[in-house]
Amino acid sequence: MKKVLVVGCGAIGSLFAAHLAHGGEVEVYAFDVSQLHVDAINRDGLRLSGAADLNVRIAKANTNPAELPVCDYGVVATKAIHTASAIRAAARCFDNNSAVCSVQNGVGNEEIIAEHVKYVIRGTTFPAGHVIEPGHVGFDIQGDTWIGPFEPTNTPIDRVEELAGYMTRGGMNTMAMPDARGAQWTKLIFNAATNPVGALTRLHHGAATRYAPTGELFEALIQEGEAVAKAMGVKLHGDPRHLVAKGANAPGKHKASMLQDALASRTTEVDFMNGAIVKWGEKYGVPTPLNRAMWALMKGLEHGWGEP
Amino acid sequence: MKKVLVVGCGAIGSLFAAHLAHGGEVEVYAFDVSQLHVDAINRDGLRLSGAADLNVRIAKANTNPAELPVCDYGVVATKAIHTASAIRAAARCFDNNSAVCSVQNGVGNEEIIAEHVKYVIRGTTFPAGHVIEPGHVGFDIQGDTWIGPFEPTNTPIDRVEELAGYMTRGGMNTMAMPDARGAQWTKLIFNAATNPVGALTRLHHGAATRYAPTGELFEALIQEGEAVAKAMGVKLHGDPRHLVAKGANAPGKHKASMLQDALASRTTEVDFMNGAIVKWGEKYGVPTPLNRAMWALMKGLEHGWGEP
Repeated sequence: MKKVLVVGCGAIGSLFAAHLAHGGEVEVYAFDVSQLHVDAINRDGLRLSGAADLNVRIAKANTNPAELPVCDYGVVATKAIHTASAIRAAARCFDNNSAVCSVQNGVGNEEIIAEHVKYVIRGTTFPAGHVIEPGHVGFDIQGDTWIGPFEPTNTPIDRVEELAGYMTRGGMNTMAMPDARGAQWTKLIFNAATNPVGALTRLHHGAATRYAPTGELFEALIQEGEAVAKAMGVKLHGDPRHLVAKGANAPGKHKASMLQDALASRTTEVDFMNGAIVKWGEKYGVPTPLNRAMWALMKGLEHGWGEP
Repeated sequence: MKKVLVVGCGAIGSLFAAHLAHGGEVEVYAFDVSQLHVDAINRDGLRLSGAADLNVRIAKANTNPAELPVCDYGVVATKAIHTASAIRAAARCFDNNSAVCSVQNGVGNEEIIAEHVKYVIRGTTFPAGHVIEPGHVGFDIQGDTWIGPFEPTNTPIDRVEELAGYMTRGGMNTMAMPDARGAQWTKLIFNAATNPVGALTRLHHGAATRYAPTGELFEALIQEGEAVAKAMGVKLHGDPRHLVAKGANAPGKHKASMLQDALASRTTEVDFMNGAIVKWGEKYGVPTPLNRAMWALMKGLEHGWGEP
């Protein structure tokens, strides 16, 4: 039986770990920094509730990758700012046949993973969840996952398809595609518009979408991101505006993850969102003054948390 | 003896009221909404401490303009968001010979004052202060004041010069000039760059200036403002960057007024700062996407204070 290691078993990682285990086709391992979470998973199983209710056993969860076996696949689901430290620690669980897939936010995670493993899979996932308590994750919003070879590592498409099959049959609909950049950039552009505006104004997503000044700022940020994607030759997979509208029409007052981070004074993913759009814009000669401004404001906000 | 009414006798208004009374050439009246402040001034005099130490009697302070006489001059020193209500109330204290001068932040106050009085004087002032307690204002930073005719009301320059003389001889150096727009736009551009960035990142002025991402955003915002002023034919009076540097080199951790407003959930002056740059940019065909973004974020932040 093939082995899959989930690297970072928080809300998103747990959705994948639980569904892969539920599918029963692979042995599922989890690496996470939370000892309480890992202990709860090993003792009581991993529990999901909400959009799906599952309580499954996985092969082993651990805070120390040295206690985990070499795996055929990896699914990296940490916050983007923790990718480097997580994959550095987990690299010992992968060999030259392993393929490791990012399902994280933003752009730039695959490049970091590729410094440590041979085959990398580019991925974007749309479901949402939150940790309720150790071992128990709320499955808030269902959604598809799109994965494809990370171009520089020439990951064979059959490896991508095999992993997609495990995920899909486990209950997480996953599309394997030769070029997964379109879905990733659609979500990136959506995130880079809505996250900093939410974090800076402290408006929940629906309020920021409906209030004209911030709604128009979303649109201006989206247009910059689209111009960069176009210059790169990335054909977007869906319209970021539909993600904005879908989120705004969802019940409840969803706070963007960057707002949740800001409220907790946690370093945000802005380098992998607006920072990535600015970087790729520079590379392709596309001006991105508004994304740069959002990046600067978020960096300034983070800088203030360290100011005496 | 001529009469001067200070409309809005907070920190800045008190600097003018105290110095004009100190000069002894005019009768000074004050209209302010704070009963405690007005009572203290009438009982104990108006006190300044810091860059100058004064304790002076003024003719009368009152919360009700109906208790105050018709005056030859007005000095409006409210927050820009209160200009309309203040001048509407105080209009009865001015007649067809009165000339009323704004010494407020931003651009757009003179237009509002001109709806209620015949002669308006455009003004910009650089000193800073804060209210210590009722009747007592801290004079934090000395600076000059620049006043000139508000163009649409054709205010005679000799009226501008007379008021400037009273202010200067009282101890508030004031320059009368035919076109006072340059000084106003220099301060506007400075304010529109530094205030929203401070309010959104919560960084004090020195930190925001020295931290590269926000310092570069100041520069980008300044360039947009300069382009608008140039298109309008306004020759700036001094470089906004010098105001940024001067503030950054001042001792202490000065929080921009918009940050102070944001921390207290008070409506800010952003409509009169970035909003004014956007409005004039539209009028003259100059794009101002970054000022618009700052405006949108501040409006969004304010909008959130009213969200349930």
